[in-house]
Amino acid sequence: MPSLSLDCVIFGFHENQLKVLLLKMKNADQWALPGGFIYREEDIEEAAIRVLKERTGIDQIFLQQFHVFGHPQRVDRKFHIDVFRKGGFKIDKDNWILQRFLTVGYYALVDFAYVTPSPDPGSADCAWWDLHDIHELFLDHKNILDKALETLRLQLNHQPIGYNLLPAKFTMPELQKLYETILDKKLDRRNFQRRMTGYGIMKKLPETRKGGAHKAPYLYSFDLRKYRKALQEGLQGGW
Amino acid sequence: MPSLSLDCVIFGFHENQLKVLLLKMKNADQWALPGGFIYREEDIEEAAIRVLKERTGIDQIFLQQFHVFGHPQRVDRKFHIDVFRKGGFKIDKDNWILQRFLTVGYYALVDFAYVTPSPDPGSADCAWWDLHDIHELFLDHKNILDKALETLRLQLNHQPIGYNLLPAKFTMPELQKLYETILDKKLDRRNFQRRMTGYGIMKKLPETRKGGAHKAPYLYSFDLRKYRKALQEGLQGGW
Repeated sequence: MPSLSLDCVIFGFHENQLKVLLLKMKNADQWALPGGFIYREEDIEEAAIRVLKERTGIDQIFLQQFHVFGHPQRVDRKFHIDVFRKGGFKIDKDNWILQRFLTVGYYALVDFAYVTPSPDPGSADCAWWDLHDIHELFLDHKNILDKALETLRLQLNHQPIGYNLLPAKFTMPELQKLYETILDKKLDRRNFQRRMTGYGIMKKLPETRKGGAHKAPYLYSFDLRKYRKALQEGLQGGW
Repeated sequence: MPSLSLDCVIFGFHENQLKVLLLKMKNADQWALPGGFIYREEDIEEAAIRVLKERTGIDQIFLQQFHVFGHPQRVDRKFHIDVFRKGGFKIDKDNWILQRFLTVGYYALVDFAYVTPSPDPGSADCAWWDLHDIHELFLDHKNILDKALETLRLQLNHQPIGYNLLPAKFTMPELQKLYETILDKKLDRRNFQRRMTGYGIMKKLPETRKGGAHKAPYLYSFDLRKYRKALQEGLQGGW
């Protein structure tokens, strides 16, 4: 489809950090969100699934469209021409890639352990970045990332965000850290535990996480059926 | 912009009913959402504001982009050709209007009293419909409306929805009816009143709504500063 692209903010959670999968561009010292175009006969959702599969190796991914970015000046023609020139390509001024592009933003939540980051043909590298280390990205991609994070925050009580980002077994401190990272604030340990337990969406397992210096914390897993039911009402009680 | 349109779900609230502004198409027995195209140099948000201003006469409107509808078969070529033929136009099979179109959905919340519905050149009529009377619309517009309503439901605790849909002064039963319509369920009168009062976002006025058969209910107005502050945290308490 002309003038239309999609970009994916792929979130993962590892070592108590919220991570984002980024691509290092060839012939430019910039990192970008993984993205792609939409084929003439392709559903936009399918296109997003295709891009995610190509970059992560996974095809069962929690995926949500969240916003279209449509500012007329969001594409930097000069930058593009420069990148192509450095790559040894001469590009015509009327080339479709230099047109105005609107991009549809998707966010994806993946289990970090199952992802094999794979660069696309236009990229030199594909890697996880700590959310807090990302200050500047290609074009308006930082803006897209910020909007994805804002959406995640708003949807924390309506989407199975914990379920999709955490491994099958996790500890209460890990879950709290995930919430704290998304909400960008410290939460009280006791309140958090009481609240999460009160939802009745998790099972306390008879195992503990071993290997730490402190007392080994218990492992939990989500009860997916109860989790989904609670989300439909909204996790804060709803109306 | 080629292959890209926008459609607006314009909500109003009148006589205890949630209403949607629709256009009756010329030369077809169908109603549609107001929509339009995006000029080459126009921001997508500006295009939505332009369409809303044209249809409602208002330009200070609460407006939110909510979803892109991108199914490859969402445009019905045969239907379009037929409508043009009935209107006395012959349309080429390669005409841009017959291409695949993706559409960006916006929802708008307006104060019913200030709107002057105005049909566009392709329409015979522009009118408010009761939400519950809308069963079928042009193309996938019913689907777009349903998605807008779902979004409204999810954002009830994060967007100033009551403020934008109700007149400056309203009664508690009117506010409750608005919530019930959006949530599509009956709410308990006492709980609702306690909850809304508890947020501290409304002022009880020293006036009552006169003219009804029952005891005249008190009028309220929103304290916009407190309302906005409460929304930032999320009206259900947040984290």
